[in-house]
Amino acid sequence: MQIIMGAPALNAFLDAEFPQIADQFRVEDVSPDLLIARMRVTQAHLRPGGTVSGPSMFALADVAIYCAILARIGPVALAVTTNASIDFMRKPAAGRDLLAECRVLKLGRQLAVAEALIRSDGAFDPVARCSMTYAIPPK
Amino acid sequence: MQIIMGAPALNAFLDAEFPQIADQFRVEDVSPDLLIARMRVTQAHLRPGGTVSGPSMFALADVAIYCAILARIGPVALAVTTNASIDFMRKPAAGRDLLAECRVLKLGRQLAVAEALIRSDGAFDPVARCSMTYAIPPK
Amino acid sequence: MQIIMGAPALNAFLDAEFPQIADQFRVEDVSPDLLIARMRVTQAHLRPGGTVSGPSMFALADVAIYCAILARIGPVALAVTTNASIDFMRKPAAGRDLLAECRVLKLGRQLAVAEALIRSDGAFDPVARCSMTYAIPPK
Amino acid sequence: MQIIMGAPALNAFLDAEFPQIADQFRVEDVSPDLLIARMRVTQAHLRPGGTVSGPSMFALADVAIYCAILARIGPVALAVTTNASIDFMRKPAAGRDLLAECRVLKLGRQLAVAEALIRSDGAFDPVARCSMTYAIPPK
Repeated sequence: MQIIMGAPALNAFLDAEFPQIADQFRVEDVSPDLLIARMRVTQAHLRPGGTVSGPSMFALADVAIYCAILARIGPVALAVTTNASIDFMRKPAAGRDLLAECRVLKLGRQLAVAEALIRSDGAFDPVARCSMTYAIPPK
Repeated sequence: MQIIMGAPALNAFLDAEFPQIADQFRVEDVSPDLLIARMRVTQAHLRPGGTVSGPSMFALADVAIYCAILARIGPVALAVTTNASIDFMRKPAAGRDLLAECRVLKLGRQLAVAEALIRSDGAFDPVARCSMTYAIPPK
Repeated sequence: MQIIMGAPALNAFLDAEFPQIADQFRVEDVSPDLLIARMRVTQAHLRPGGTVSGPSMFALADVAIYCAILARIGPVALAVTTNASIDFMRKPAAGRDLLAECRVLKLGRQLAVAEALIRSDGAFDPVARCSMTYAIPPK
Repeated sequence: MQIIMGAPALNAFLDAEFPQIADQFRVEDVSPDLLIARMRVTQAHLRPGGTVSGPSMFALADVAIYCAILARIGPVALAVTTNASIDFMRKPAAGRDLLAECRVLKLGRQLAVAEALIRSDGAFDPVARCSMTYAIPPK
């Protein structure tokens, strides 16, 4: 499906609508196949043992998938996550940002389904995978 | 299974090990059947439309389930979430804290499975449900 | 929400609409809080080591949750599962039927969410838990 | 990770260990990146409206992921699914087999995580996606 919002438009949308978290997340690239988003990992995201907290990784997947859907349907602030399933598979590398690559698998009128793979910047093995369903409000 | 850490011990553990987030979460009650945890909802948890963010609800479920497991096995800081599945079902009531009630369904040597139901304080219909698997490190 | 189809009506519906599988599943009881369904475990459901196969347990959860929704909205054959999350926690007891107890957590116009706990008949510890989302077709 | 069982060895293993279902499933191809498995769709898999049943698609994902793990660790009949999350996204095409393509994301000593995308043979848009965790028994 066609991309109607690119990375600059998505980042401007995050800045305007989600000011509390926008400085933590950046959309780096959007194409019909893949959206890539970055989480700037800071001390606030860390947990005992130096790992990034589960809720922080959930937040990254949520932002990436939300933006991948908006890239196709335009700025609909009220699309909501209805279901998420996440597997935490490895400990992130210390002192690295996290990158999520997101694919949209279905974009229906009412429901969208997408998945995201999260890696430490520069690493190959995924840290986590996540799939989410979003409900899209009627126009 | 027997409870070996009560609410005061769990809260002291959160304060010591998770200082970044401990002021947001309190264990209110623990019994062999049920653990109840509270999230003090603040402006930082809110999103457009006045809803509590998905990652915040995920964090509440994670804390509640983690504490329900520690209540049975003692203070093992390195138990980690390996899988989570969450359904967001309703918008939380405005200006209310969230309460999670958590049940442990399995506590094996290597894996524990538990589920949590999240409600707005004072409301009946659940806002979200979550199930999680934790990997328990060898002693 | 009010129950408009009881166990006999639900079983008659299964017999009429799902003849391939209806002899394996029976709704035993329906109330506003809980639906109980039985799977008659036969050799065809078993796998190496004497366990009941995962797809068989998935099928039991699916039937139980489907019937719990129909009990409230009437016989809508085209309601479809959109998401399922299942945890397999213990090996079922040998030579016993399985029972699912199902609770409906949300019944919206478009989406319903319910969960089921599966036990071996006569045992306490659950064998599996499952949550599912159903899309309800417009009338 | 290295492939130590190819498609013929995996199919022979299914024939020997899972005779009840082996005629429904075939591994078509295995590489370090991807395993492809086919489900021969018959009348027994269908439901009202001509769709393939959810449990049948679950079974296909389960076989594909199980075989993708065995391809790397050898014939361990007692590896068990501990968690599965599945999204049903589209109605399968009528009268077509289903194909699952499976990727292993993590292969640890105790847990393996993999995901599968299911399509109707000859179609592009996925019918379902599934992620599963397997517990691997100690040697």
